[in-house]
Amino acid sequence: MAQKIDAQFDARGLSRRLASFVCNTGESDLPATVRNHALRTVFNGFGTALGGSSDQVVVRLAESLSPYAGEGRATAIGQARSFDPPTAAFLNAAAINVFDFDDTHAGTIIHPTAPVLPVVLAIAETRKVSGSEMLLAFTLGVEVACRLGNAVSPQHYDRGWHITSTCGIFGAAAAAAKLLKLNEEQTLWAFGNAAAQASGLVETLGTMAKSVGVGGSARNGLLSALMAREGVEGPPAPIEGPRGFLKVCCDAPRPERIEDGLGSAWEILRNMFKPYPCGVVLNPVIDACLGARAARNVDAAKIARISVRGNPLLKARTDRPDAASGREAQVSAQHAIAVSLMRGTAGAADFSDGAARDPAVIALRGKVEEIVADPAVPVEAAYLTIRLNDGTSLEVAETNASGSLRRPMTDDALRAKFASLARYGCPAIDAAPLARALWALPDTTDVGPVLALARPPA
Amino acid sequence: MAQKIDAQFDARGLSRRLASFVCNTGESDLPATVRNHALRTVFNGFGTALGGSSDQVVVRLAESLSPYAGEGRATAIGQARSFDPPTAAFLNAAAINVFDFDDTHAGTIIHPTAPVLPVVLAIAETRKVSGSEMLLAFTLGVEVACRLGNAVSPQHYDRGWHITSTCGIFGAAAAAAKLLKLNEEQTLWAFGNAAAQASGLVETLGTMAKSVGVGGSARNGLLSALMAREGVEGPPAPIEGPRGFLKVCCDAPRPERIEDGLGSAWEILRNMFKPYPCGVVLNPVIDACLGARAARNVDAAKIARISVRGNPLLKARTDRPDAASGREAQVSAQHAIAVSLMRGTAGAADFSDGAARDPAVIALRGKVEEIVADPAVPVEAAYLTIRLNDGTSLEVAETNASGSLRRPMTDDALRAKFASLARYGCPAIDAAPLARALWALPDTTDVGPVLALARPPA
Repeated sequence: MAQKIDAQFDARGLSRRLASFVCNTGESDLPATVRNHALRTVFNGFGTALGGSSDQVVVRLAESLSPYAGEGRATAIGQARSFDPPTAAFLNAAAINVFDFDDTHAGTIIHPTAPVLPVVLAIAETRKVSGSEMLLAFTLGVEVACRLGNAVSPQHYDRGWHITSTCGIFGAAAAAAKLLKLNEEQTLWAFGNAAAQASGLVETLGTMAKSVGVGGSARNGLLSALMAREGVEGPPAPIEGPRGFLKVCCDAPRPERIEDGLGSAWEILRNMFKPYPCGVVLNPVIDACLGARAARNVDAAKIARISVRGNPLLKARTDRPDAASGREAQVSAQHAIAVSLMRGTAGAADFSDGAARDPAVIALRGKVEEIVADPAVPVEAAYLTIRLNDGTSLEVAETNASGSLRRPMTDDALRAKFASLARYGCPAIDAAPLARALWALPDTTDVGPVLALARPPA
Repeated sequence: MAQKIDAQFDARGLSRRLASFVCNTGESDLPATVRNHALRTVFNGFGTALGGSSDQVVVRLAESLSPYAGEGRATAIGQARSFDPPTAAFLNAAAINVFDFDDTHAGTIIHPTAPVLPVVLAIAETRKVSGSEMLLAFTLGVEVACRLGNAVSPQHYDRGWHITSTCGIFGAAAAAAKLLKLNEEQTLWAFGNAAAQASGLVETLGTMAKSVGVGGSARNGLLSALMAREGVEGPPAPIEGPRGFLKVCCDAPRPERIEDGLGSAWEILRNMFKPYPCGVVLNPVIDACLGARAARNVDAAKIARISVRGNPLLKARTDRPDAASGREAQVSAQHAIAVSLMRGTAGAADFSDGAARDPAVIALRGKVEEIVADPAVPVEAAYLTIRLNDGTSLEVAETNASGSLRRPMTDDALRAKFASLARYGCPAIDAAPLARALWALPDTTDVGPVLALARPPA
């Protein structure tokens, strides 16, 4: 059929212009704030990969893929053996995202580092890439993923697309295209190859299959660019075409949001880091619970029932009273409330399979009676009412969750998170020199050797 | 969120029941007609793989993937070197489908062999699989892909999903699960892992990126089952769940069509083989043109203008007046009309890049003035009006296209197609013993060695 565009959908040439943006943006085009936040983002994502690297889902995925992996010295973070670059990218994406402890882009809830960072790391182990070159490609990949996300939000996720995977593959392709020095036409083809593979369903969240989608977005985004380099051609309008990504995967796309402020307003600055290893909409709930326990001495044994009021996303995404596994617990408001009120902590160990099966936690979850969806409550706020056995009740509020744009994690907090995750997921490596090497990336002439610090002794 | 099902969408347990069907169906459950048609389907698909094996898209995909392919002795049909099984599956799916000369399932327009056959071939080279075992797994994979297609048609394709890829991955996963002897739970997980990766856009048709989607459906379907075997768990309702495949990828799914007649009415019997290497909706158009040229001595030089009336799918999918490549020509009514009227043939060479650039063909394409979409015309019919320079005109009709369910290709016609495709795409192999070995599959105790016949000398 002819490449026609609806009258109201005047986005002709959008895919090509986005390819041009990726090709033609240089290191000097990135403001210092953007470069700094990109570095923080890489550091945070590397830490979550360390934390997730020994999780059963990553172990099982590695066991599934190992027999078919090619020769190659690409690092799967936290693992002794090496892999071919696409397989390493798959495993690193899964490890970064498995606990939902990675970064979150405000507005789309994309976790952009999971699909994008593994691609630039894998390429940096196949040829010499400087730290600043890597950070530029990473920043552009995040930009592409989040801008596509902006254009399809909120309908895309609401319908059931796992936006981290579906939009992430375009970011992965963009980052790979940049580091592989593809030209504009090849970058456009990489977007076409990515469009052919964009996938991921919300139905899989809370199960290991989520990581299959996220891992695939990194691997297949990298392959999209590698294929484009070999001349695998795509359509002229994979994003904005009549049967392209935007129209097929969104009931009311806003293509203009892809180019609005492109090159001046950087989406990575809207990227948040999570203090807790679970769905970001749970942050204010956990802040409120931890605060109540610490400051007001709430005793879990004396709680009769609990209700929580929050943004409608809280109910839509985390009303999961019977979380049976760590993965389900990470997207369960009931679990988050119970564990943080009872234990006074909300780290990786509190969202593990063991924590999900803790009878005391399960009992307290059962006292969460109600999750009220209130459109007037912003996503970074939550209000709890805790009724006690003696008939009294406590009102607990959090209006500005930690890890939000207005209250970002500090560099020191990121360092502590990194160290804690390394201890949890990968105690066999020495995390301190790795952390130092990552903070030094802007001045590093060759990123490849940094990856070696992320491998435990064989 | 809780796994809730809409009241009107009473499909609870569908994914699990489909998994159970795959696990529990044995060779003796297949009627002889089904077994025979499965064999014909495999034979036809193997031939189209031979024909496509040296096409530029397959060459470029192989060059892209080779550096990252693992050890393995899986055959890429028509290629001397071997690959790891998922990579071989990817390349074979691309080769089978690249010319659109493979099979077509009536009603969904799925090309089911492309995603499914490569998976059973790849597994048959990793362990001993008998021909009848392979044909059973293949048949079940086709059944799953086509039944999912039935449930989402026609909205799914109409919106822009490339149904061969999106539904095909579930068939690939099912076939792999069967040959790997996964249990019901593992097969359900394989469907979950497939759901996380289901992708493919109509926007990519006519470009090389189409093959990226189709190849991925085979590779990722195989990986879905391999991951499930290692314990990568999926959700309980990947197909029918509230954010599952049916609801996300179709505006009006009919889940009941997945189970209607399951195990008694076999979808593979609705699978058609194509006499021409292009979109199946073009079959009646080409039949009509070849017939007119042969019987009525139409001279292309004397044609003033042409109009064609057909099923609305003809216009929707093949109104492509400026096809610039072989791949675009394969889905161009204008090209099909021009080449068959001018040359009197409609083989692989007539839908090549060279044919698409033939100035005489391009000139005649320009005389196709109109493609009329007439809902009263069935998909296997077409009506042409050819107006000549002398003012006279010819009315040409085809009401029952060759390759349709009512007029299927004979075994002899399939043999001729196979031999022609082997000559076209892979002249270095001796096709005759390969053809004999394929027809003998029902009595073959070990399929693996058959594949060796499909490799040219190194």
